[in-house]
Amino acid sequence: MTDRAAKARKQGSDMSADIIDGKAFAAKVRGQIAGQVARMKADHGITPGLAVILVGEDPASQVYVRNKGTQTLEVGMHSYEHKLPAETRAEDLYALIDRLNADPAVHGILCQFPVPAHLSETEIVARIDPSKDVDGLHVVNAGLLASGQRAMVSCTPLGCLMLLRDRLGSLSGLNAVVVGRSNLVGKPMAQLLLRDSCTVTIAHSRTKDIAAVCRGADILVAAVGRPRMIPGDWIKPGATVIDVGINRVDAPERGPGKTRLVGDVDFDSAKEVAGAITPVPGGVGPMTIACLLANTLTACCRIHGLPEPDGLTA
Amino acid sequence: MTDRAAKARKQGSDMSADIIDGKAFAAKVRGQIAGQVARMKADHGITPGLAVILVGEDPASQVYVRNKGTQTLEVGMHSYEHKLPAETRAEDLYALIDRLNADPAVHGILCQFPVPAHLSETEIVARIDPSKDVDGLHVVNAGLLASGQRAMVSCTPLGCLMLLRDRLGSLSGLNAVVVGRSNLVGKPMAQLLLRDSCTVTIAHSRTKDIAAVCRGADILVAAVGRPRMIPGDWIKPGATVIDVGINRVDAPERGPGKTRLVGDVDFDSAKEVAGAITPVPGGVGPMTIACLLANTLTACCRIHGLPEPDGLTA
Repeated sequence: MTDRAAKARKQGSDMSADIIDGKAFAAKVRGQIAGQVARMKADHGITPGLAVILVGEDPASQVYVRNKGTQTLEVGMHSYEHKLPAETRAEDLYALIDRLNADPAVHGILCQFPVPAHLSETEIVARIDPSKDVDGLHVVNAGLLASGQRAMVSCTPLGCLMLLRDRLGSLSGLNAVVVGRSNLVGKPMAQLLLRDSCTVTIAHSRTKDIAAVCRGADILVAAVGRPRMIPGDWIKPGATVIDVGINRVDAPERGPGKTRLVGDVDFDSAKEVAGAITPVPGGVGPMTIACLLANTLTACCRIHGLPEPDGLTA
Repeated sequence: MTDRAAKARKQGSDMSADIIDGKAFAAKVRGQIAGQVARMKADHGITPGLAVILVGEDPASQVYVRNKGTQTLEVGMHSYEHKLPAETRAEDLYALIDRLNADPAVHGILCQFPVPAHLSETEIVARIDPSKDVDGLHVVNAGLLASGQRAMVSCTPLGCLMLLRDRLGSLSGLNAVVVGRSNLVGKPMAQLLLRDSCTVTIAHSRTKDIAAVCRGADILVAAVGRPRMIPGDWIKPGATVIDVGINRVDAPERGPGKTRLVGDVDFDSAKEVAGAITPVPGGVGPMTIACLLANTLTACCRIHGLPEPDGLTA
């Protein structure tokens, strides 16, 4: 739904939330990145480069890597794809990472996960130069984020932050509740909201009266991975709801054996209460690759001692 | 006040909190450490060693370093003190740190802060091997803590955690509110409480209606550095209150020009509401050196591939 359609709909009923169009916003972010990349080329003769490593032939990973490569080129960056056979030895993968770490044309490095079982994701991430770790997975980046320093921030929470800032402007003093405490989303999301001066609560499976905790949230970020676990009556009227969950569920109404994607929030009841809400799909999801490109541009600026890209970092 | 005195007092009035005796608890922790150090010597022939670096002649720092040295020896560890002149060059300090990093007799390294202005605390900490960073200040330790891995945890939040576990047993599902978001205390404290499955809220100067936020806390940790900012009527009846603040205030009642130490919590009104509370002084403070020794033992165990010391780690 477009912004205009959402607003028209809201006028028809005060009870219905604005639908945050992540696909449109991600396209806008990519446009900003493309503009900054063009200026960087013109002013400094530098083209940001992103290297993506794919080990093996997982079909979903192949699609992701292809999409990343396409969007990397579209914003004017260089894309380097390294496709290795499934049986690649760890030392050969590490040798490739070492070469990319040392390559001045490469500003971002990511290895598409999952990798085959004989390889260790933790060790792969640890091998990547933290300043080129555009997925924000390295323990040094977690530490920089946790201590309020300049980090590479993992793409999904960064995308959520951008959506929130775009919607709300300053987040200072708002009550933010993050449901879920994963290393990939929940914990870095809490750090980012704290850095923007929210009062931050992290709730999870052990939380008592989670409904009441959620009802206190001006900003509610759901990152649990349980389909539709958060109903509308857990949501404060007017709250901004960011749904990170992407869960595949049976959809017999679409035909026998059919499935569909739903979030961690029960969209139909939540949209009657929230002030704004991200849909699934089409909300947070499209922001992830946009933030990967934003991080690559940020890494490039930092490596070259240039100012941070405008509006694209935490 | 002893535990017994606190209990007797509580029996006299249901409204008065147990006073958590940090001095007595720290002595107990040091006793546990001494026992484990003795066993480590007997079973493995290993004596944990702590190296403390002091640059310059700050009088307060000299007292701290002396106390650390005394307590290190008392628990049966080796203490190595390196006192350098105030004008020590950075490269000479780094060379010393490099030697200590490589020295198998040294399991913990700390540099007493503040250092003279020509030296960078950030760079000093970055130079210390994270596995020997017993102050838990290195960015790698912040990252390990933030991602739920085995870290060196900074001493004050670790001490608070030990007091809480001793008082409450399992913390799972309790509502914890941390007031203050410093890198040294507030943020690592929140990580530790989250790891112990509390529902964690971080409040700070931008928090709206901080009184109401505090009133929701089963566990309230105050780490702001503002004398007596938290009055009794911000506290949930029966809550456990940990007061990290150490603020020096005028005490004209003690005579002209006299001062005294107070916490971030208004002790007199808070103790009428809380279930238990740490006093200032004598609460969290004495735990800090005990946790430094605990971390040195932990570092020694990890370096030698031995099991974590019992009850002394996060």
